[in-house]
Amino acid sequence: MSLATGAPTNIESFYKFTDDVSDPKLFESWKPKIESYLADLDKNTLPELRVSSNEIPSNLDSKIFNTINFLSNSNSLSKLEHEITESSATDLAIKISKSIYSSVDVLKAFAHRAVILQQFTNFAMDFFINEGIKRAEELDSYLLKTGKTIGPLHGLPISLKEQIGYAGKITNGGWVGWLDNIPKDDATTIKTLKKLGATFYVRTNQPQSLMHLDSNNNIIGRTRNPYNSLLTPGGSSGGEGACVAARGSVIGVGTDIGGSIRAPAAFSGCYGLRPSTRRISCFGGVSSGKGQESVVAVCGPLANTVDDIELFMKSYINEGKPWDDDQWCIPVLWRDVEKPNPKDITVAILYDDGLVKPHPPLIRGLDYVEKKLKDIGVNVIKFEPLEIKEAYNLVNEMYSCDGNFAQKEMIRPSGEPLLPLTKWALSFGNGDKMYTATENRELNYRRDALRKKYNDYFVQNKVDFIISPTYTGVAPVCINDAIAGPYYWGYTSLFNILDLPTLVFPTGLSQDPKVDIKDESYSPRSEIDKIEQDKYIPELFEGAPICFQLSSRRYFDEEVVAFGKVIEEVLKA
Amino acid sequence: MSLATGAPTNIESFYKFTDDVSDPKLFESWKPKIESYLADLDKNTLPELRVSSNEIPSNLDSKIFNTINFLSNSNSLSKLEHEITESSATDLAIKISKSIYSSVDVLKAFAHRAVILQQFTNFAMDFFINEGIKRAEELDSYLLKTGKTIGPLHGLPISLKEQIGYAGKITNGGWVGWLDNIPKDDATTIKTLKKLGATFYVRTNQPQSLMHLDSNNNIIGRTRNPYNSLLTPGGSSGGEGACVAARGSVIGVGTDIGGSIRAPAAFSGCYGLRPSTRRISCFGGVSSGKGQESVVAVCGPLANTVDDIELFMKSYINEGKPWDDDQWCIPVLWRDVEKPNPKDITVAILYDDGLVKPHPPLIRGLDYVEKKLKDIGVNVIKFEPLEIKEAYNLVNEMYSCDGNFAQKEMIRPSGEPLLPLTKWALSFGNGDKMYTATENRELNYRRDALRKKYNDYFVQNKVDFIISPTYTGVAPVCINDAIAGPYYWGYTSLFNILDLPTLVFPTGLSQDPKVDIKDESYSPRSEIDKIEQDKYIPELFEGAPICFQLSSRRYFDEEVVAFGKVIEEVLKA
Repeated sequence: MSLATGAPTNIESFYKFTDDVSDPKLFESWKPKIESYLADLDKNTLPELRVSSNEIPSNLDSKIFNTINFLSNSNSLSKLEHEITESSATDLAIKISKSIYSSVDVLKAFAHRAVILQQFTNFAMDFFINEGIKRAEELDSYLLKTGKTIGPLHGLPISLKEQIGYAGKITNGGWVGWLDNIPKDDATTIKTLKKLGATFYVRTNQPQSLMHLDSNNNIIGRTRNPYNSLLTPGGSSGGEGACVAARGSVIGVGTDIGGSIRAPAAFSGCYGLRPSTRRISCFGGVSSGKGQESVVAVCGPLANTVDDIELFMKSYINEGKPWDDDQWCIPVLWRDVEKPNPKDITVAILYDDGLVKPHPPLIRGLDYVEKKLKDIGVNVIKFEPLEIKEAYNLVNEMYSCDGNFAQKEMIRPSGEPLLPLTKWALSFGNGDKMYTATENRELNYRRDALRKKYNDYFVQNKVDFIISPTYTGVAPVCINDAIAGPYYWGYTSLFNILDLPTLVFPTGLSQDPKVDIKDESYSPRSEIDKIEQDKYIPELFEGAPICFQLSSRRYFDEEVVAFGKVIEEVLKA
Repeated sequence: MSLATGAPTNIESFYKFTDDVSDPKLFESWKPKIESYLADLDKNTLPELRVSSNEIPSNLDSKIFNTINFLSNSNSLSKLEHEITESSATDLAIKISKSIYSSVDVLKAFAHRAVILQQFTNFAMDFFINEGIKRAEELDSYLLKTGKTIGPLHGLPISLKEQIGYAGKITNGGWVGWLDNIPKDDATTIKTLKKLGATFYVRTNQPQSLMHLDSNNNIIGRTRNPYNSLLTPGGSSGGEGACVAARGSVIGVGTDIGGSIRAPAAFSGCYGLRPSTRRISCFGGVSSGKGQESVVAVCGPLANTVDDIELFMKSYINEGKPWDDDQWCIPVLWRDVEKPNPKDITVAILYDDGLVKPHPPLIRGLDYVEKKLKDIGVNVIKFEPLEIKEAYNLVNEMYSCDGNFAQKEMIRPSGEPLLPLTKWALSFGNGDKMYTATENRELNYRRDALRKKYNDYFVQNKVDFIISPTYTGVAPVCINDAIAGPYYWGYTSLFNILDLPTLVFPTGLSQDPKVDIKDESYSPRSEIDKIEQDKYIPELFEGAPICFQLSSRRYFDEEVVAFGKVIEEVLKA
């Protein structure tokens, strides 16, 4: 592969971890399990739903291919299948409840599209379409018999990040050593969604360690961005990003501790909500985060409309009552918040966090959003970077402050080789240095001081929302083990350490190599800035969506979603 | 002092901490500061409000004296002062709003009673009555001018645990080394209560380390129980317990990480709510808990009626909006919950946690409560101890898992000598052993597993509430540096590790040496059980109130308060 990607050539010099737990000999013994897993995946990617293999370019990894366009125009999907899969969840829920579509029709349509998507993007780890159809049949019978839906998500095909524990199914979280793990119980989120009527048929890809903003692992390899096959769909919920954006499911469920819902939504081009902590349950998943409370992972939805994000949140919380199964979820109902009058709203835009400068397409996108918001009367001000370096250093220390102990415990059983972005993640903060309880408390205390400053910023300046880039650029390149992948997490991890509800929204714009030319005069501020700037080779990114984050105060999730609808409208207008 | 107290004679053998940070020479240099603090306290305990010193028995520490009775019958308080101070906050708020009482009248009445109470119990660390009067005058003017109250707590005299940071006033938290600490800003809770119209005039005593269920320190010494001068009022918010129960204030504010609101309420005989975490702000206090998230301290009210507890909670949350100042507070309004129909309620009673057996007065009290509840149709079942030992060991490990680092940092600056119950607290868990971040995470994970079991217990058995003892007995003896004080925290700390909202309620019963005779046949189960049983010498406890805890699920604070009203009614009937 001779494609120039601008990848750093000296990345090893940044590594701070000292103990590489991989063990090639041990890993050999796991390869049959990987083979068997892949064979099952292949078998379950139902051949009868696939497109002919000669429709698939052989050079997906060296030439840009747009799967979204392919699917939109594909005759392999029937008119009904196009109609169904291009609908919103909100519309589908109504049409299913009125028996305009059956749950089976809907499941089959999405499953068909998902299988084709899989052929191009490798987004799925696990298909079980016939189980999904069976459940859809039950739902159809129930509706026919009772005249009622089983719940507000009746018949909606929802994709699940594989990490979320599924009873009776291998749940590996992207770690080879977990290929034997078959949970007895469903995770709270799966129980909850089942109860509400969702149908399941696909579980999606994620990176080794769950700590890349990319999705590549030693089990099924990497997932491709549906808009541009050279690029990553994001991570760690990257399979979800690809699946939802390409309408392989109508809603997806991801998790996020540093950007893992938002990078996929932004890179793949859909909506994605990182809720405040403890609203959607993370209980019952495979992760290295057990008992880690300094920066807490959240679970949340990806979808193609803000209404669908709200449908998920409101149904899950108000009717799902996850606190009956997971005491961590706060028993607080989702509030109905009206779309605000734009003239009452102040938005602060972060154009540049001062550490790593956003690439040209993002600058163009922010200018566009600013203009659109001003046009409807929103008071738009500039957000001056506030303690960005402290936030970045702090959250990175938190990720690794157990000296990477938990992460290595996940890797060790298989001895699998470490991927470059895993090595990068293990180098966060002080790498393999084990903190004491006191040192950990000091991180927490610094975090609380930071949160206080941001809370004061919102309150004292009467700022309602912050809009910011999700990453330095649009989706980066992820061929060659993603060595030109996303290194700088500062734009997303800021909102993890602050625990602010954050919605990623597409602008409708995408990168255009002719417009978004590189600023050759820019001189990087730091090594990490240089790494990120060097990768901006405009012609690699053609078609990549331009998306941003909308954040508000802790537990103002409802307000974020309500204003998200305003933004959606104005950007679609 | 030859009074037999049954105190353990071998308590040193239980100590697990290794490094006693006290430094007698250094401590000498702090004595003038203590003297000066005491002189200020004496001066500010306004002489014109005191009773004649010859009304005060000289043998308060060797003979039972009931200050509650003394105050109820005292001619030193005028009829109006009796009337005001014996009212509930809810009634006073109405009467002040109708100008039946002025805020000044109310402040003066409580201040007068508080000064006399101070003479007998030493409950206060800081009086500033004239400031309180000045504020009350402003409130009266405001009401006169506008016809409106400034907020729902307009003119209510509220006492504050001294630990809560008060702008411009020494805030020492019971540590000698903090006698120089004068915060620039009020704690969030003080700001919030000020905004709502509360008046302040007294700040109350607490133990060295804030980690005794007693209130004794090297600054002003110990506080006496208002019902029985030999006993502790509880701790760490023991000054609050004494003050509220004896009506030196109409509502008090305490904090609780192991029982520190509930032991004072139970020992002194009033209501006290340990809310779920993050509802009432702890921001801006002096403590050793910064950044510690394994078992989180809460702030909450003590009062003489459940309506008053609700008045505090609802006003503070719904109108105080503490999340504007402290991002940790969740912006979730206090819900109006109707008093439930007793016939719809299931209560599980914990008679004995299986580790340390409750003393006879508590057994009698629980039988009484059971009968009363059954009489009104409540379904009462027995709560079988669930993982009590795990909970006790775990929470004790959490308290000290920084190897007591933070605690010692608080003690070190003054070199003050360690009190026996401080030594006991430093011996919790593994004493001075510093945990790693990983070991700390393991504690958290075990805690989460425990919480899941309790949540499942409530949900699967359809149990609404658990009623339990607050401690092994009624208030223990606290003379002689409280060596016969409370050692076993298991009954209260259970609800800290579980984070369950818990209301202490008085039964109206009190210990009676003639009825509550010792069970001489009982053979202690363990050393800690023996320590607690040996102290039960019936004649020491005469008049001590019998109180219990009412707990429900996390964030079901409103339900606890609503059923608390049912219990209050049935026990008063």
